[in-house]
Amino acid sequence: MKTTQWQLPFGATPREDGGTFFRVWAPRAEHVAVRVVTGKSYPLESEVGGYFSGHLPEVAVGDRYLYVIDGAAEFPDPASRFQPMGVHDASQVVDPGVYPWQDQQWHGLPLEEYLIYELHVGTFTTEGTFSAVIPHLDYLLELGVTAVELMPVSQYPGARNWGYDGVFPFAPQNSYGGPDELKQLVDACHARGLAVVLDVVYNHLGPEGNHLSSFGPYFTDRYKTPWGAALNFDGPDSDPVKEFFRQNALYWLNEFHLDALRLDAVDWIYDMSASHFLQELAAEVHRQRVAQGRWTYLFAENDTNDPRLLRPPALGGYGLDAQWCDNFHHALRTLLTRETTGYYEDFGRFEQLVKAYREAFVYTGDYSRYRRKRHGSPATDRPTSQFVVFAQNHDQVGNRTCGDRLSENQPMEKLLLAAATVLLSPYLPLLFMGEEYAERAPFHYFIDHSDPELIEAVRKGKAEEHASGICEGAIPDPAALSTYLDSKINLELRREGEHALVYGFYRQLIELRKRIPAFKVFTREEIEVTSFAEKRCFAVF
Amino acid sequence: MKTTQWQLPFGATPREDGGTFFRVWAPRAEHVAVRVVTGKSYPLESEVGGYFSGHLPEVAVGDRYLYVIDGAAEFPDPASRFQPMGVHDASQVVDPGVYPWQDQQWHGLPLEEYLIYELHVGTFTTEGTFSAVIPHLDYLLELGVTAVELMPVSQYPGARNWGYDGVFPFAPQNSYGGPDELKQLVDACHARGLAVVLDVVYNHLGPEGNHLSSFGPYFTDRYKTPWGAALNFDGPDSDPVKEFFRQNALYWLNEFHLDALRLDAVDWIYDMSASHFLQELAAEVHRQRVAQGRWTYLFAENDTNDPRLLRPPALGGYGLDAQWCDNFHHALRTLLTRETTGYYEDFGRFEQLVKAYREAFVYTGDYSRYRRKRHGSPATDRPTSQFVVFAQNHDQVGNRTCGDRLSENQPMEKLLLAAATVLLSPYLPLLFMGEEYAERAPFHYFIDHSDPELIEAVRKGKAEEHASGICEGAIPDPAALSTYLDSKINLELRREGEHALVYGFYRQLIELRKRIPAFKVFTREEIEVTSFAEKRCFAVF
Repeated sequence: MKTTQWQLPFGATPREDGGTFFRVWAPRAEHVAVRVVTGKSYPLESEVGGYFSGHLPEVAVGDRYLYVIDGAAEFPDPASRFQPMGVHDASQVVDPGVYPWQDQQWHGLPLEEYLIYELHVGTFTTEGTFSAVIPHLDYLLELGVTAVELMPVSQYPGARNWGYDGVFPFAPQNSYGGPDELKQLVDACHARGLAVVLDVVYNHLGPEGNHLSSFGPYFTDRYKTPWGAALNFDGPDSDPVKEFFRQNALYWLNEFHLDALRLDAVDWIYDMSASHFLQELAAEVHRQRVAQGRWTYLFAENDTNDPRLLRPPALGGYGLDAQWCDNFHHALRTLLTRETTGYYEDFGRFEQLVKAYREAFVYTGDYSRYRRKRHGSPATDRPTSQFVVFAQNHDQVGNRTCGDRLSENQPMEKLLLAAATVLLSPYLPLLFMGEEYAERAPFHYFIDHSDPELIEAVRKGKAEEHASGICEGAIPDPAALSTYLDSKINLELRREGEHALVYGFYRQLIELRKRIPAFKVFTREEIEVTSFAEKRCFAVF
Repeated sequence: MKTTQWQLPFGATPREDGGTFFRVWAPRAEHVAVRVVTGKSYPLESEVGGYFSGHLPEVAVGDRYLYVIDGAAEFPDPASRFQPMGVHDASQVVDPGVYPWQDQQWHGLPLEEYLIYELHVGTFTTEGTFSAVIPHLDYLLELGVTAVELMPVSQYPGARNWGYDGVFPFAPQNSYGGPDELKQLVDACHARGLAVVLDVVYNHLGPEGNHLSSFGPYFTDRYKTPWGAALNFDGPDSDPVKEFFRQNALYWLNEFHLDALRLDAVDWIYDMSASHFLQELAAEVHRQRVAQGRWTYLFAENDTNDPRLLRPPALGGYGLDAQWCDNFHHALRTLLTRETTGYYEDFGRFEQLVKAYREAFVYTGDYSRYRRKRHGSPATDRPTSQFVVFAQNHDQVGNRTCGDRLSENQPMEKLLLAAATVLLSPYLPLLFMGEEYAERAPFHYFIDHSDPELIEAVRKGKAEEHASGICEGAIPDPAALSTYLDSKINLELRREGEHALVYGFYRQLIELRKRIPAFKVFTREEIEVTSFAEKRCFAVF
């Protein structure tokens, strides 16, 4: 891809003529200074709008720094590009222009070609780093997927986390290898024709190491989320908060050459203003997409079955490119497993899978027993390429009390049926790492917080959670190292016995999907799903 | 208008063959009974969905009753049609079919003909009742307005209140005369060709006498409002809550023959589901409108300058018919008065009034200093008949610390200029009672709660409130009878001195508006506003 003109308008920006330019939003502060850990403090100047900034000739790339607010408290940079010592320590000045990108010929993929492989950097390999993923990219090519989706990589507390506890949205996790290694990984993907999707969290921040409130009103108490305070996207001083996260999206797309973002749980992004954050974000990403001549996308995770997210602004929509379709998963899974716990109670009928094939959303205004209310709205005006479907993903495995995969509790023929249902669907398929060879390792929930009270709260919360699947025996301790290590997968398994058989089947399905033109049709008018309910089968034309 | 087939599906419904049918939603209850105050208790039967119902042959019209929940606590009916003894006492069975309506020939008014007169029943006359309004309707005809808008009339605690503390959404205030008198008033309006708009509150309930939570999860703690708990429009068991308020709208339109509802502060109606309460409400009202062949409307008060409310569903809108345009008021008022306190700090420039004339919304994504964020979105795709404009209204007078009207603090020529700016605008004008003859009585904030702590809290809140206007001297005690009595207007003033002059001017302007075809143009393409800023005037073609 081309070098872009975009620059992060805050954080620490090294200048070509030497020194570093700092800019931070701290509307409650009277004075803000930069203190270099190994050196002096430098006062910043106040701008209108609550920003403080200044060019500091003596501060160089690699220097570690903290912001000093009103001469009293010190905090790392909310827009830190790197937290080499973790969330409780100084930020480091990073030169965003120094990485020698080799992907000049890369322009991304058409949306319809996305075939996504979701992976968690920490458990995908023994090493658990960005670099360690690279040697396995040729394997992913062999499998046939076209895009790698990374679970969130923003700096979180400790060395093990799914990523949804991130507190430095701009800093790639230190224990994964930091910003340089992430760039190498993306570059290596692009060199092989693989797109890279990054999971980003714009609905809350993690509970440990979150210092944003010391800088400004990033949060609001007008709304609640299940994970703590809601972000302030529509209250007083919300413009800079919106700007912070909008620039975060642009940062990943431009500075890290990412191809798409997966926006976590957007139904917890509250914005009651006339201009919703997601709509503004999509407009900006699409503007840059056109200007740069490359394919970039915003995928959403959303729980409300609301087609508004996917519709263009001219039809009152937010203009997001696609969304995960949990309804498809639930319809498929409950037919395979007969599970009825948790949100699966709303599923289990054959016609629901047929409806998922026809309309994506199964609940389109129907009463949901689990939710105790009517749920959703039809999205049949949207092309099928706006929906991502899966038989497994990190949540649908990891939120189960045992973290057990389908392969752990289902016979092989059902695994193959699930694979075919997803990979031959008229939607964009997503695989969860290891699924393609029936990996048996669990995917547990794990954390590495340092606050004992917080750890206890997480343990308690997990034990009480009514997850989608309930297993016998004790729930693994989220804070134990072994819980994390047990979740690591072993790609070598694909060569052995039944694993090899499943793997071969996945490869064949993907090859079929790529080869046959019928699988390149995404307009609903051209797709006909005929149900033979008495035989529990259906045909797609 | 024609008799409609619509029936309230809950509450107490007298049967033609005798007795009364009761139905109430109480999903948390095991047993529900009806206790007639002067007689026996009768158990209801449990239905699916948390409703309890039963036909009680011995209960007749006029009987007073309470619901007994699980044999323990007694509460009046959430859907009570009448609370003869106020909010803390029994409900009364009312026969909705007994009133002898005389308005069979009435079919409502086209939206474009609305010229609204907002009045508060309690302070419009000495008596402060629905009936007492009737003798003055000929005066309103003489003035030339086409619609009467009543501030909320749902039963509130005590005998004096603006109406926004209502706790029985279906019961017309007892001290105003209850349901029969309200029907007489509406009938009398229709007999004179006047439409009737009712202000209804679907964003919260009042703080005293609110027993809804004893019946079911009407409220949620997911969101906050400035006036207490938010209504549960999207959480578990929200369908019956939506149904309760949707039926409330239909109740007023059908059982009371009302022509339009003014939905109070809809920006505090939280519904994050794929199908917003307002969209569902508008769809149902419009369905009935077509089926019944009469003109009914939903007006909204909304603070977010969001055209989504007014757009049709096909364009992603909620499909409401019109909304109050506070921006127009603020632009006009600040030019007249030079006020800069509170939200007036965002206004005061001549071009803003020109923009209000051109676009209705002045803030269309611009930064608002008062709100400390960008605000609003353009609504220029909407016809001008979707906006209600005013130089005064109950809030813009009553929320001032002194409750002083424009006539109290501005010279006559400015009053006349304000009148012309509103009445000759391409929008739907609204007058606040007394404005038309420069009434000098204040419109104070008043309450008549019985809980001393609550009274103290209201006093304190009012004293601390940063209202739009600040006056010298002490703030009148909201709980004092004199504060209420001082707010009563005296229509006889219109015959005297300067009052008569102002009144004549209003009549002329209204006559002009009705006579000249140019004032019947509401499509923006046909309206051109030319600004001569240096002369501080503009022309509308």
